[in-house]
Amino acid sequence: MARERKRIDTAAISPLTVNRLSIYLRSLRRLLEEGVLRISSERLARRFNLSSAQIRKDLAQFGEFGVRGVGYDVAELVERLSSLLGLDRTHRIAIVGMGNIGTAIARFPAFNSGSFLVVAGFDNDPERIGRRIGPVVVRSTGELVDAIRETGARIGVIAVPADAALWVFARLAEAGVRAVLNFAPIALSTTAECRVKNVDLRVHLEELAFFLERPEGGVGV
Amino acid sequence: MARERKRIDTAAISPLTVNRLSIYLRSLRRLLEEGVLRISSERLARRFNLSSAQIRKDLAQFGEFGVRGVGYDVAELVERLSSLLGLDRTHRIAIVGMGNIGTAIARFPAFNSGSFLVVAGFDNDPERIGRRIGPVVVRSTGELVDAIRETGARIGVIAVPADAALWVFARLAEAGVRAVLNFAPIALSTTAECRVKNVDLRVHLEELAFFLERPEGGVGV
Repeated sequence: MARERKRIDTAAISPLTVNRLSIYLRSLRRLLEEGVLRISSERLARRFNLSSAQIRKDLAQFGEFGVRGVGYDVAELVERLSSLLGLDRTHRIAIVGMGNIGTAIARFPAFNSGSFLVVAGFDNDPERIGRRIGPVVVRSTGELVDAIRETGARIGVIAVPADAALWVFARLAEAGVRAVLNFAPIALSTTAECRVKNVDLRVHLEELAFFLERPEGGVGV
Repeated sequence: MARERKRIDTAAISPLTVNRLSIYLRSLRRLLEEGVLRISSERLARRFNLSSAQIRKDLAQFGEFGVRGVGYDVAELVERLSSLLGLDRTHRIAIVGMGNIGTAIARFPAFNSGSFLVVAGFDNDPERIGRRIGPVVVRSTGELVDAIRETGARIGVIAVPADAALWVFARLAEAGVRAVLNFAPIALSTTAECRVKNVDLRVHLEELAFFLERPEGGVGV
């Protein structure tokens, strides 16, 4: 059955939707590995703890409709979502700050597979510069702008202390990085040139601690 | 000036509010270190990239009102928020999965300071069991339930592959853990016994990749 590829007004897609699409893609890839050829939204929802109504709604937004009683074609959906999410091309990642978090990210399989490739790591600690960590040899943060332009990295990971984060962010943007995953304990704002996702692990921990003594409520954070 | 401590209906506090309170606390602690005694909501907002109106609203909810023209007493606010967030007591953390992420978490200063203490680490890889990583000696995941009961850990960190996550979550809940930070690439749901915060790094990366080719919009994720 031929499907029309609906033209997408990407400015109208919310980050939450993109987040869900990414989760669907991962779940579908899993099914593909298991040899599953077709899946209904209900089965997908049950298997991966999702909402079947939301799945149908999200996919319909991109012109993907299941066949009644049969479901969706898994391989086709994987291809379509990969393309939609920009994952049919390689995205190069540069990590600034090669401490605990930076090192973990450099070695993390999810950041070094499929469409992602860690191509550079930076630090200002002489003990770390020159060491091989995961796929990179750590370079001095002083060389950041030039090195990133050389490697063509478009995604940056910031894993430096709060004091250094703003400066690093400015250098990354200057070097052509267009999207940043920020682990520094300070909020950075998305700019016209560079999109930011802040991940604040300490805050998550404190949120959990808050609810530890208070068993009321069952709302997931 | 004596303030009435407003009684708090904690079931009415949203996770987003708790998240902001945690950020205010960190910002205020910083000011305390710098010797700042009083601060207005506007100055706090400007300094730490927050919303002054939201600050006033959030603090008022807990009976904290600034003095017009003068602002808030920093030390008092730190004490009040620490108490509110349950951070005036020590919270013990157990980490399951001592790979890249688990190791980074075990060594992460923010997880081993103030009110937090990593007291146990588990893995099923014989190469890792018995090794010292950060403050713990890695134990076998088979001993998880007993070991956690011994250590009194109430917060768990899950850093295992997706396949193992549900089983680990069930064992943690069984052992008395009441809050979990989940890094496994599968969503876990908060239950009546145990609150969950899911942190999916791969999904964050894919969200960023989606927006790389599409410069429209300036909404932070």
